[in-house]
Amino acid sequence: MSKTEIATLGEFGLIKHLTKDIKPVQPSTQKGVGDDAAVMHYADKRTLVTTDLLLEGIHFNLEYVPLKHLGYKAAVVNFSDIYAMNGTPTQITVSLGISKRFSIEDLEELYAGIRLACEKYNVDLVGGDTSASMTGLTISITCLGTAYDSDIVYRNGAKVNDLICVTGNLGTAYMGLQLLERERIVMNANENATPAFEGREYLLERQLKPEARRDIIEQLHKAGIKPTAMMDISDGLSSELMHICTQSNVGCSIYEDKLPIDYQAAALAEEMNLNIVTCALNGGEDYELLFTCNLEDYEKLIPLEDVYLIGHITKSEHGVNLIGRNGEELSLQAQGWNAFKK
Amino acid sequence: MSKTEIATLGEFGLIKHLTKDIKPVQPSTQKGVGDDAAVMHYADKRTLVTTDLLLEGIHFNLEYVPLKHLGYKAAVVNFSDIYAMNGTPTQITVSLGISKRFSIEDLEELYAGIRLACEKYNVDLVGGDTSASMTGLTISITCLGTAYDSDIVYRNGAKVNDLICVTGNLGTAYMGLQLLERERIVMNANENATPAFEGREYLLERQLKPEARRDIIEQLHKAGIKPTAMMDISDGLSSELMHICTQSNVGCSIYEDKLPIDYQAAALAEEMNLNIVTCALNGGEDYELLFTCNLEDYEKLIPLEDVYLIGHITKSEHGVNLIGRNGEELSLQAQGWNAFKK
Repeated sequence: MSKTEIATLGEFGLIKHLTKDIKPVQPSTQKGVGDDAAVMHYADKRTLVTTDLLLEGIHFNLEYVPLKHLGYKAAVVNFSDIYAMNGTPTQITVSLGISKRFSIEDLEELYAGIRLACEKYNVDLVGGDTSASMTGLTISITCLGTAYDSDIVYRNGAKVNDLICVTGNLGTAYMGLQLLERERIVMNANENATPAFEGREYLLERQLKPEARRDIIEQLHKAGIKPTAMMDISDGLSSELMHICTQSNVGCSIYEDKLPIDYQAAALAEEMNLNIVTCALNGGEDYELLFTCNLEDYEKLIPLEDVYLIGHITKSEHGVNLIGRNGEELSLQAQGWNAFKK
Repeated sequence: MSKTEIATLGEFGLIKHLTKDIKPVQPSTQKGVGDDAAVMHYADKRTLVTTDLLLEGIHFNLEYVPLKHLGYKAAVVNFSDIYAMNGTPTQITVSLGISKRFSIEDLEELYAGIRLACEKYNVDLVGGDTSASMTGLTISITCLGTAYDSDIVYRNGAKVNDLICVTGNLGTAYMGLQLLERERIVMNANENATPAFEGREYLLERQLKPEARRDIIEQLHKAGIKPTAMMDISDGLSSELMHICTQSNVGCSIYEDKLPIDYQAAALAEEMNLNIVTCALNGGEDYELLFTCNLEDYEKLIPLEDVYLIGHITKSEHGVNLIGRNGEELSLQAQGWNAFKK
């Protein structure tokens, strides 16, 4: 692919080039790219805002992450936060810091991924900022969304005896990352090696091209279930459970044998001598939903696709616990993800 | 000052530490820091959004920019964009990428500046993202604001014969930067030297601690003037005039002898062999307002403080021109600020 230096376009030229055929599709977008600020009209709905900063070398490694996938993921992780409020993502702004290493064609790839995500989720790109950087690639995306006030679900509404549910499966994105890292090291050591990805495409997809669970929000809405608390699982189930329990002033018990685990992830964990339950609890980047709902909603929950009941809310003094396969109780720690310790 | 490593707190601890006593003051803030997204209620007003990315080594040099000033400026430049829509800034999100070089105390300083700006302009800090970075400091701020639909001023509304006004003075922030750069070089060459800032504090203030022109928006509102087009001057007057003329499909004539220039800036330019008019046209970072308004508003404009009439809008075919002191006509070029060429 040809490589064109960004300096040939300059900042305004670059922004124009990357955004020239962007057409807003959201009725709420009144003015998109091209003024001091974008203008939105949400009528009687609330405005939601969330933001995510992705830095090269910390959040992604371009040795194995294609730019288009990176763009897609950078947008989707923001949508996920809006769905986690029981809202609908509607607009994003995209700020990029770009070192000289990147060409216009590279940015076209990145933008192609961002725009693909926007098209899939009906979100408008309405603004942003583009700048040179000293080193590496910086991506800062802010997402706006809407919801009726009565629909919004916070983290602090879980009540004793509420059911705890998660969607999809857990730890798979983390195992995808382990696989990519392992093969990167193999490839770097032997340039004739080919990465052993066969039969493990799903793990890669979960790491490289996650989706936000719009489908779950739609299912919950149709089923007439409003969760009492909800968040997306970006830092690992343990960490997110701690957030909900702390903010709701409750405890919880979840069951090891109820945790949804993908068989490819389990097989790779076995091969790599990792404990798949630990990965599921602390892996991060799953972008699944964790929610609690009223016990009365049990019957409505059963028919939902890809929703798994993993435990229940208890009084605060019981703490945040995992009940093992033999009935033993383990107190969960929020390992979260402390990049500052690296 | 003592220096505490960020790793001692971790990501969640750090966010909690920096945001623990933040209390929303905006009636429109329904939920601030602490959930997947913040929630705002703007009732019958429109939602505005703007964003700015600041990167160490590109947008700021910590050798002479104190962190508190940097935080203040990073927030204020976003407020400026919302005022430039004739709106009111109401909330910001703050994302930081932080290398190991920075301590918790450093971030407290940065946040102190951001919060000072928020207090002064009645803006709530409602969310963000904090992460380690490989090198340097990254600051990404997104600002939300509101305005009644009928009050919003875009860049594309300038009409032939409209008056062109600017506020404050131009080129001063740029001269402040030249002064800081010159003294930095002197200081680096001779550690016993003291920087020659006396009598030039105003230049430094304009560079290090700019203000957004809320006062002008209030004056215009009281005077019953709604500009036909408006934007803030961040990349230099020439560049911004080109934006308004292109988007409004008009031309303009501005007069060299009408450009508001500060005497300290003019004196330093003389001393440094710089053309102060060129600095005023292309300097950037003034964060003053450039607006056009109907000729009928002339009488209402006169009493406004710190507002200067510098020219008028013409037909598109006349181009974007500067009329010199001797009546000569110069076609303006938008030099803007192409960091990619550095």
